[in-house]
Amino acid sequence: MADLIVDALNYVGIIAFAVSGALKAGEKDLDLLGFLVLGYSTALAGGIIRDLILGIVPPTNITSLPYQLAAIGASAFTFALYDKVSKYRDVVLYPDALGLGAFAAIGADIALKRGLNPLGVAAMAAITAAGGGVVRDVLAAEIPLVLRKEIYATAAAIGGLVYLSLYYIEGREVALLGTIISVVALRLLSLRYGWELPRLKRRAASPGA
Amino acid sequence: MADLIVDALNYVGIIAFAVSGALKAGEKDLDLLGFLVLGYSTALAGGIIRDLILGIVPPTNITSLPYQLAAIGASAFTFALYDKVSKYRDVVLYPDALGLGAFAAIGADIALKRGLNPLGVAAMAAITAAGGGVVRDVLAAEIPLVLRKEIYATAAAIGGLVYLSLYYIEGREVALLGTIISVVALRLLSLRYGWELPRLKRRAASPGA
Amino acid sequence: MADLIVDALNYVGIIAFAVSGALKAGEKDLDLLGFLVLGYSTALAGGIIRDLILGIVPPTNITSLPYQLAAIGASAFTFALYDKVSKYRDVVLYPDALGLGAFAAIGADIALKRGLNPLGVAAMAAITAAGGGVVRDVLAAEIPLVLRKEIYATAAAIGGLVYLSLYYIEGREVALLGTIISVVALRLLSLRYGWELPRLKRRAASPGA
Repeated sequence: MADLIVDALNYVGIIAFAVSGALKAGEKDLDLLGFLVLGYSTALAGGIIRDLILGIVPPTNITSLPYQLAAIGASAFTFALYDKVSKYRDVVLYPDALGLGAFAAIGADIALKRGLNPLGVAAMAAITAAGGGVVRDVLAAEIPLVLRKEIYATAAAIGGLVYLSLYYIEGREVALLGTIISVVALRLLSLRYGWELPRLKRRAASPGA
Repeated sequence: MADLIVDALNYVGIIAFAVSGALKAGEKDLDLLGFLVLGYSTALAGGIIRDLILGIVPPTNITSLPYQLAAIGASAFTFALYDKVSKYRDVVLYPDALGLGAFAAIGADIALKRGLNPLGVAAMAAITAAGGGVVRDVLAAEIPLVLRKEIYATAAAIGGLVYLSLYYIEGREVALLGTIISVVALRLLSLRYGWELPRLKRRAASPGA
Repeated sequence: MADLIVDALNYVGIIAFAVSGALKAGEKDLDLLGFLVLGYSTALAGGIIRDLILGIVPPTNITSLPYQLAAIGASAFTFALYDKVSKYRDVVLYPDALGLGAFAAIGADIALKRGLNPLGVAAMAAITAAGGGVVRDVLAAEIPLVLRKEIYATAAAIGGLVYLSLYYIEGREVALLGTIISVVALRLLSLRYGWELPRLKRRAASPGA
């Protein structure tokens, strides 16, 4: 049951992430291939990097035709209906949050199976969930958004620790669902109330740096 | 026979790609190491990424001394004779197209051997052929050229599908040669006639994006 | 004995590299997560990339809790005391040089064990030592410093060749220590005397490039 929910939300995430990548391609005036590559990368690169680190080759996101078709389909759809999709940009934040939760749960689940330590589990949850966005921003020649603002990768990393705790207390199914609920709640609350991570009070002067 | 041709064109590609990386290093005013790293990466990083994804470690491009020497030699040559090489920049497009075809054929060939699905085969052809150029542009802090203009990675991806079709109809040898011919033809025709992939009609206004 | 020294200097390097990543995060006005990710990446990404290329998965830097805690601790410390640490930026160059030497020795040692050719050993020494800094700069949307100026990755690559030569003449222990001494000496001398790699005499005009 939990696996079914995770799998369904995984598709929600792939589609929402691909849309976010394709919207970035539109901002940067890329061509159709740019839309497909940025959509594909945003949706699937986090899981690919996680699998490479854990020694799962070829990575699941490369061997799964349905995942690839979902990512490419959503990217092509965004290209075709760019103005409409762009107008509903804020609505995409909700499925995006669901995907963030599902990706974090999946990443933590696989990392624990492979015997990583707690920091490794948190890192794999964050990389699965936010790695695609980092690749998207690097390809767009920008500093990754997740390093600059909003509670995003942090929510996923905390989700990894929630997974670990629940796993040993209540078992895998509860851990999966509890992770998703925690991450989605944390993400939506942070958006609603404008929570941000701390940053330096005054920027230190760094002449010529 | 087909393998011999592929191998010869592979060297043509390594040298042409390394030159393109070294020319980018010159544009960015990098030092000698910058020339070598950008030349090496442009020539060999696509194949390295492909091998990591397919679980071939250490990657062939790291264990093959001749490939490495060809890439480093061509980069050093470009450094030494920068003004001359730079003047013949447009001539390099022809060996570059041959390399694109050979790299696409090699990528598709390995991907099929490893049992990837058709989308995976097309992706591996494109990554082998265009991944090095993406790494070059990321290291130069630019949006990768292949995402913005020209038929380049797209030609390689189509080459992957040509390989697949020919492989089942005519066998591996014909598939290798047919892929190279298709990719080179598509690339040169697109250069000749200025073919581009479609892009958004009018750029959507994205204030502050 | 040599292993003990290498291990101690490895921690010196992790801490110095993490500080350098966190200082870059401050320059770019990133949030706390940005500090942790840039510190972590600068300290550990070089070794992670090396391990992925050599097929060591999960990479040691992911499975070692002490390494991760050292990197994260140094990054958080830099965040908390940014102005103070920033003021001693030049002092960090000394532990950074020690880390450069230790990372190069470790990279060459592992690469030789895995049977790489001499160019591969030099490349693994350089990637272990300078790969983290490249990731730091790519995440900061800048052209990697090591490609533009100073003798840094070059010192590590030369260290890889020193390792190889000493290994066959004097054995592994001498090779480890000799590599560290050579790299640290070369790095500090280059800083002291302002040595740079050669670059193009006059920048070739590259209109519209």
